[in-house]
Amino acid sequence: MNTLETFVHVLDLIGTFVFAISGAVAAVNRRLDIFGILVLSFVAGNFGGITRDLLIGAVPPAGLTDGRYLLVSVFAGLITFFWYAGVDRLRSPVLLFDAAGLSLFAVAGAQKAIEFGLNPMMAALLGMLTGIGGGMTRDVLLAEIPQVLRSDLYAVAALAGASIVVIGYVLGLSYGVSALAGGGVCFGLRFMAIRYDWRLPVAHLSARGRAEANPSDEEPPR
Amino acid sequence: MNTLETFVHVLDLIGTFVFAISGAVAAVNRRLDIFGILVLSFVAGNFGGITRDLLIGAVPPAGLTDGRYLLVSVFAGLITFFWYAGVDRLRSPVLLFDAAGLSLFAVAGAQKAIEFGLNPMMAALLGMLTGIGGGMTRDVLLAEIPQVLRSDLYAVAALAGASIVVIGYVLGLSYGVSALAGGGVCFGLRFMAIRYDWRLPVAHLSARGRAEANPSDEEPPR
Amino acid sequence: MNTLETFVHVLDLIGTFVFAISGAVAAVNRRLDIFGILVLSFVAGNFGGITRDLLIGAVPPAGLTDGRYLLVSVFAGLITFFWYAGVDRLRSPVLLFDAAGLSLFAVAGAQKAIEFGLNPMMAALLGMLTGIGGGMTRDVLLAEIPQVLRSDLYAVAALAGASIVVIGYVLGLSYGVSALAGGGVCFGLRFMAIRYDWRLPVAHLSARGRAEANPSDEEPPR
Repeated sequence: MNTLETFVHVLDLIGTFVFAISGAVAAVNRRLDIFGILVLSFVAGNFGGITRDLLIGAVPPAGLTDGRYLLVSVFAGLITFFWYAGVDRLRSPVLLFDAAGLSLFAVAGAQKAIEFGLNPMMAALLGMLTGIGGGMTRDVLLAEIPQVLRSDLYAVAALAGASIVVIGYVLGLSYGVSALAGGGVCFGLRFMAIRYDWRLPVAHLSARGRAEANPSDEEPPR
Repeated sequence: MNTLETFVHVLDLIGTFVFAISGAVAAVNRRLDIFGILVLSFVAGNFGGITRDLLIGAVPPAGLTDGRYLLVSVFAGLITFFWYAGVDRLRSPVLLFDAAGLSLFAVAGAQKAIEFGLNPMMAALLGMLTGIGGGMTRDVLLAEIPQVLRSDLYAVAALAGASIVVIGYVLGLSYGVSALAGGGVCFGLRFMAIRYDWRLPVAHLSARGRAEANPSDEEPPR
Repeated sequence: MNTLETFVHVLDLIGTFVFAISGAVAAVNRRLDIFGILVLSFVAGNFGGITRDLLIGAVPPAGLTDGRYLLVSVFAGLITFFWYAGVDRLRSPVLLFDAAGLSLFAVAGAQKAIEFGLNPMMAALLGMLTGIGGGMTRDVLLAEIPQVLRSDLYAVAALAGASIVVIGYVLGLSYGVSALAGGGVCFGLRFMAIRYDWRLPVAHLSARGRAEANPSDEEPPR
């Protein structure tokens, strides 16, 4: 068990590192300075879990009390700052590590939400949020629509993985089993989505809707 | 009393539904995929109350523990996704439902803040935040300046309704009375603002200010 | 001691006022209405501390329970609304007051984080967040990349001041001494950064990175 915990913790730090890389790369592409790069590294790597902890009342969040997450994030930011060209070349492998991090965050996030007494449906959603929240906050800080809201099967994969953990809990399966199943499904979905460019459908717009789709001050009804 | 509670709860779900529609419509207009549409539906319908609950320490927020709010939000998102043209035609009635939802959220939000011991002034503001927070978060996720910050009497109507509830509490009136009065004033103000396009004043800019008003990297003093 | 506390509280309100002015000026430049101006005043003046309080579990946040912060913020917003040209002329002195507010917020924020049991490294970061969080939220609400993420030594000065307070705490020095030292260093760094336009380095971009740096839908790896 202790070995498993260590294993999971190492995976957790790896996931944080990979997510932090994504924040640092985005910050470099937007010409942020070294401080901005480190902030986006920490945000992308940790705000999914921090947001979940705020919502379930687990304060101060683990991302703030365990210094290792900060160190890993800063490390990712510095690597990207000093070695951007190299990081830039590693996109494909990074996507796989990112899928692994997403799977782990979704599974661990759902489990933590269950432990804090959330109902199963919400626990699954909070697991998904743990996986996608960091990237969403990263994009909000960059004044962009979060990519996860209009792209491929990213969030759906996280939700599927988290849901399996919750279902396993409801069925009384051991966490180890459902965690492996949920993580595997999330990773597999991500892998297929990247491999075959699977995407989610977009709604059909009326002419009026298309008109509004162009950036303008007109707004939908509040 | 029990009937009143049921009535209020039904109104609450209706308000959530209408706000969720506004989020879904905005998401469709920005070409988000079905997942993004559902996220914006939930955010627009529930983040006002969730933000209030986080600020007053009521965690986990009711929006996360009572699954009906999620179901209503998802339902609103799916209707908009599959039947956008129809939803698009319903703008005027939606505006009225929206005014009703705003009134209800502002009144209920102020009452909850009072129950959690906030001082009257802050309770009124948190009531307003309950009404406008969902739409603000929706716009932030769409990388836009929240419409409520530069439009008509939307927030002011919510603040007026919430303030009446707080004043009634300070004067020792029964919640039912002050809630009806506050909700009525909020709804009436919104109705008049829509009917006669009432707007709030905007500050006069110096030449220098106007120059900066154009999107640019120059910034106001921090 | 009581005199010191009063002194610190007065400084705190002055810092809130100056930060609120920055929010109001930004809101006027973006053509927000009077309500939007007051919201940005409150956000810029208080959300650094409010965010810190949410993260360390100090709810409801002091910015919501002590009405004076709201009154000072509203006052700053009204002054800017009715007397924009005058406020606009006061930029240089405002920058100095802003540096004072930043120093105070960073020092007080770090101390509060220590009192709530955060580890020293995180206490220093939360002190920094207390200083920069208001301006960051202001820029996010204006759909802009927070200026602090790509500008001069603003955040670094706050971090330096907060770190000195934390180090003083670890070394067992009296809070008064380390607070004065930390505040002085933060103010000094800000003053020099403004005076000599000190800036932080920006990463070198690959050709590919530069291509992406232009606003576009392409994204960094998540």
